[in-house]
Amino acid sequence: MNEPELIEKLRRRVALPRTAGLVLGIGDDCAIVRPRGSLEDWLYTTDMLIEGTHFLRETHGAADVGWKALGRGLSDIAAMGGEPRFCLLSLAVASWVDARWLDGFYGGLLALAKRARAALIGGDLARTERVMCDIVVAGTVPRGKALRRDGARPGDGIYVSGALGGSALGLAAGRGKAWVRHKRPQPRLALGRFLRVRLGATAAMDLSDGLSLDLHRFCAASGLRAEISPPPAYRGATLEQALHGGEDYELLFTAPARVRVPEAFQGLALTRIGTMRRGAAGAVEMDGEPLPPLGYDHLRHL
Amino acid sequence: MNEPELIEKLRRRVALPRTAGLVLGIGDDCAIVRPRGSLEDWLYTTDMLIEGTHFLRETHGAADVGWKALGRGLSDIAAMGGEPRFCLLSLAVASWVDARWLDGFYGGLLALAKRARAALIGGDLARTERVMCDIVVAGTVPRGKALRRDGARPGDGIYVSGALGGSALGLAAGRGKAWVRHKRPQPRLALGRFLRVRLGATAAMDLSDGLSLDLHRFCAASGLRAEISPPPAYRGATLEQALHGGEDYELLFTAPARVRVPEAFQGLALTRIGTMRRGAAGAVEMDGEPLPPLGYDHLRHL
Repeated sequence: MNEPELIEKLRRRVALPRTAGLVLGIGDDCAIVRPRGSLEDWLYTTDMLIEGTHFLRETHGAADVGWKALGRGLSDIAAMGGEPRFCLLSLAVASWVDARWLDGFYGGLLALAKRARAALIGGDLARTERVMCDIVVAGTVPRGKALRRDGARPGDGIYVSGALGGSALGLAAGRGKAWVRHKRPQPRLALGRFLRVRLGATAAMDLSDGLSLDLHRFCAASGLRAEISPPPAYRGATLEQALHGGEDYELLFTAPARVRVPEAFQGLALTRIGTMRRGAAGAVEMDGEPLPPLGYDHLRHL
Repeated sequence: MNEPELIEKLRRRVALPRTAGLVLGIGDDCAIVRPRGSLEDWLYTTDMLIEGTHFLRETHGAADVGWKALGRGLSDIAAMGGEPRFCLLSLAVASWVDARWLDGFYGGLLALAKRARAALIGGDLARTERVMCDIVVAGTVPRGKALRRDGARPGDGIYVSGALGGSALGLAAGRGKAWVRHKRPQPRLALGRFLRVRLGATAAMDLSDGLSLDLHRFCAASGLRAEISPPPAYRGATLEQALHGGEDYELLFTAPARVRVPEAFQGLALTRIGTMRRGAAGAVEMDGEPLPPLGYDHLRHL
């Protein structure tokens, strides 16, 4: 069993008596809920950051870990064109954690929370052998307006923001600008809102597990296939890193052929990499060859 | 630094530009948010359940772990008199986890979710060395009606539901009814609603870290001290287990002296254990002697 299979299995299994106010459940970047009487839809996402899996004590500073823990969740809100509203943090600390580390951790997290206007309003604390953070972020969009993965249509152009592979390059290099990019991802919140409000994007998701795997999931959600060319690679990154490297937190989105997508938004490049087509749902071809989904699947061992 | 100190430090530190719609932030069982236009207040809580800390692979079955992961979050909603609405689950799996374990885990979690009408609408998956679950539960109460920790007044009677120490006894024994109680806590949702709607309780919280520690926190929240007698102990449990044992998930609440609290609610005993008094905030006396807060503090090592 792999991750999409488990998620699909869960999605079928959780079919409860219809939940009042649930607009979208398991399977997208965020779940969508419409509170009774509310003019806004609420978006909810959770993201884990685990010592030894997502970061190392030796190389990742406390403030970077705090920043990234929240950044991952904010990126999901960005992907739906949402406005962050608040966050909760569950934090399990290891015995090596001291008051100074905690101070740095919360410093990094709260700096990003302030910038994104996502107040930390609660959470949980526990002890374990490796540090584990789980962030919950809630955001809002006007009723019915969230950008989802499943809205792409045949003929839509496929775009990515920025350049890909920078995080993978940084992780490999352990220094330089790419390393900063790996440690301090910038959730594309302003871009997400622009895509939703101004551009009329048809679908969007954030790139967390690598383009090849994420684009496969993106296509599958819309029941389409994709034809692409090589994406823009981060300076110094290999094509492999740009295609399969995780944690870039750029946005992947589609727009109808008639829409004129600007070359950049607030200095961030927007590059057309291909076109959505009818065909085998989830299939991706690059320059006419199948592109296997080699990104990071957390359950590949099952 | 201990847990309350860190929480207090965080509470001061997160003071962001006033967050629209935030009714109550860090420090209670749930955070409270009032969505624009909504007639209901929304409650949010997160709770971790970690292999080696909260459960053991050898002794706790997969379905029990799933049940308890959700039960802990539902208990926080119960403590505020809320109605569960939905949940999200972050799950990090260890390499020993197989498809059968996952199946059992979700079976236990979804059985309780169905009973409590809390749809699983999203979450995250990751890999690590020990299984780690973090549950997010959202619930609702009519606007302004949540039961909080800080509402107790001098002279209020202090009550607990059920009998205490059963979970600690069960964990020590590893078998029998107390063991089931440890593995499958019953969130007191109906009782919480009764306390809020019918009884007019002034404050409430759930007992997760042991009465001595939780009552200390409860008193501190209301700026009061407590005088109590020994609480009702679970059959076979010692007074130590009843006072300091965690994970009973019963409710601790206060009601004005004039309120006639029934002896039981739906077969669950409601027992008066003492009275709230003016005095040193957080101090607890049992039969005239100070009762130290010996329950479980996750950060005692700092």
